[in-house]
Amino acid sequence: METLSYWIGMAGTVAFAVTAVLALAPKNIDLFGAVVLGIITAIGGGTVRDLILDVPVFWSIDLNYIWVALGASIAAFSANSLFTRKEIYSLMLYVDGFGVALFAIEAVNKVWNLGFGLPLAPVILGIVTAIGGGLIRDVLAGRQTLLMTRELYATPVLFGCTVYVILLELFPDYRFISSVISCLCIFGVRAAAIHWRLTVPLWLTTNPKTE
Amino acid sequence: METLSYWIGMAGTVAFAVTAVLALAPKNIDLFGAVVLGIITAIGGGTVRDLILDVPVFWSIDLNYIWVALGASIAAFSANSLFTRKEIYSLMLYVDGFGVALFAIEAVNKVWNLGFGLPLAPVILGIVTAIGGGLIRDVLAGRQTLLMTRELYATPVLFGCTVYVILLELFPDYRFISSVISCLCIFGVRAAAIHWRLTVPLWLTTNPKTE
Amino acid sequence: METLSYWIGMAGTVAFAVTAVLALAPKNIDLFGAVVLGIITAIGGGTVRDLILDVPVFWSIDLNYIWVALGASIAAFSANSLFTRKEIYSLMLYVDGFGVALFAIEAVNKVWNLGFGLPLAPVILGIVTAIGGGLIRDVLAGRQTLLMTRELYATPVLFGCTVYVILLELFPDYRFISSVISCLCIFGVRAAAIHWRLTVPLWLTTNPKTE
Repeated sequence: METLSYWIGMAGTVAFAVTAVLALAPKNIDLFGAVVLGIITAIGGGTVRDLILDVPVFWSIDLNYIWVALGASIAAFSANSLFTRKEIYSLMLYVDGFGVALFAIEAVNKVWNLGFGLPLAPVILGIVTAIGGGLIRDVLAGRQTLLMTRELYATPVLFGCTVYVILLELFPDYRFISSVISCLCIFGVRAAAIHWRLTVPLWLTTNPKTE
Repeated sequence: METLSYWIGMAGTVAFAVTAVLALAPKNIDLFGAVVLGIITAIGGGTVRDLILDVPVFWSIDLNYIWVALGASIAAFSANSLFTRKEIYSLMLYVDGFGVALFAIEAVNKVWNLGFGLPLAPVILGIVTAIGGGLIRDVLAGRQTLLMTRELYATPVLFGCTVYVILLELFPDYRFISSVISCLCIFGVRAAAIHWRLTVPLWLTTNPKTE
Repeated sequence: METLSYWIGMAGTVAFAVTAVLALAPKNIDLFGAVVLGIITAIGGGTVRDLILDVPVFWSIDLNYIWVALGASIAAFSANSLFTRKEIYSLMLYVDGFGVALFAIEAVNKVWNLGFGLPLAPVILGIVTAIGGGLIRDVLAGRQTLLMTRELYATPVLFGCTVYVILLELFPDYRFISSVISCLCIFGVRAAAIHWRLTVPLWLTTNPKTE
């Protein structure tokens, strides 16, 4: 089980780095910029989480996260045309969604085990872990961050992390099944959003008249 | 006294979150983005301060800061039209100014008590605490940060924190009265700036010819 | 030797702050904004490094870094016309390049001594130390970061830090000479880039057709 989750985590890292490089490619960046932003996207959120928790940053203990992000960024940069093929890019979006779900739930677990700021901090740091890297990338690349769009990316994470914390509170003995359910909550909504191009409904935005 | 300062701190948190959401409303953000940016504005500066001090982040010990920022953000998002009424918005600006003053002086106190990098670090971290959250919000929202405007927002904080450090050095036995004086220094200048729409004088900018 | 490296570090701090203020001057900022951004440029990268390493931030132990950055920022702000004179500005660019080289190599040393995430983390944190402050400055000032340009600024740092880590691995007994060689690697490439206005070759960018 541990091993499975580890490999899914690595797949998520690949997807984070690849989607980052592909998103930035039209901006005409060089190899160095692509690799830096790919790695930041993959590990930035977890790094901020670990700084706030005051625990060693996860990649300093297991450098594989960096190696994998490094390799994936270089691959995406070199084989740009391969990864922008419709099927591959679509696959990457789903793997990215799965990575987001997994990283968020793992972060909730980590914070919960440390008893850090329960019950609110696990949800907050779950979101930070899942979207923090992408936010830092967009800020450094001068792109609009997803907080300013109606994309259904962060809201499913909020939903799933909240579900998980409630389940942990109510059924402390069924931790594994709770984590699977919460993970699927996030991935389910995210996959639906990718497939049907769903966005946040207009009545939940500040300016409902502009479409 | 402790209790009074605690409640003023909470009022400041409300004002930080509310003014953040109102400032962002014209940008057409969704509820999630509004809440995230409201919370970041309210707690971001103190979080960076605590990371640099290497002490537990303040909101992990007292989650009320997050709950209050969360509630205030949702309220400001929902009752947008109420909060943009001239009197209410104006009130919020002054409460925000008072929150800035209080947070800055409390931060100087915290850093001073830790004996961290005296005498310079208390001033620097007072400024970080007061304006850090707003800077992170503006960067994530793609807005111009206040460092690039002539608004009199950060300069009063620098002034008041410097006054407080000098008073702490000269009159270590009159700490309470010193903190009140310094707090009023910041709030006084800030309130004057809001009331008379004062800005940084042109001769203190790099390009005095452009008006 | 220690003393020499200390003074070179201070010269680098001056150059970081001065080039930052000069770069921002056309944007019409006020004295406060100039000083804040000058200091952030000079100490931001090392601060992020120390947070990730979970060691006390370097300037809290030796406040001279802040005083020097503060003085240099005020000087550059006041004597703008002096520093924009062609020879002085050119000198500053080279001193900045030397500061980058020195800070990067010193960072690799620090991380290596802590045995933190070897062998990858020293290179990563060397780059963070050298360019982190400039990235934060550009983000706060609303400028395009150097990651999105073809400037040869960060790539030499990657090159020199990698060389140094390899030399440390292969010749642990020749640490001093290794550090000098690696420092010169960075400065050499950077100086060449300034002198001949070299940029990253187009085939190493994502969009080789746009010139």
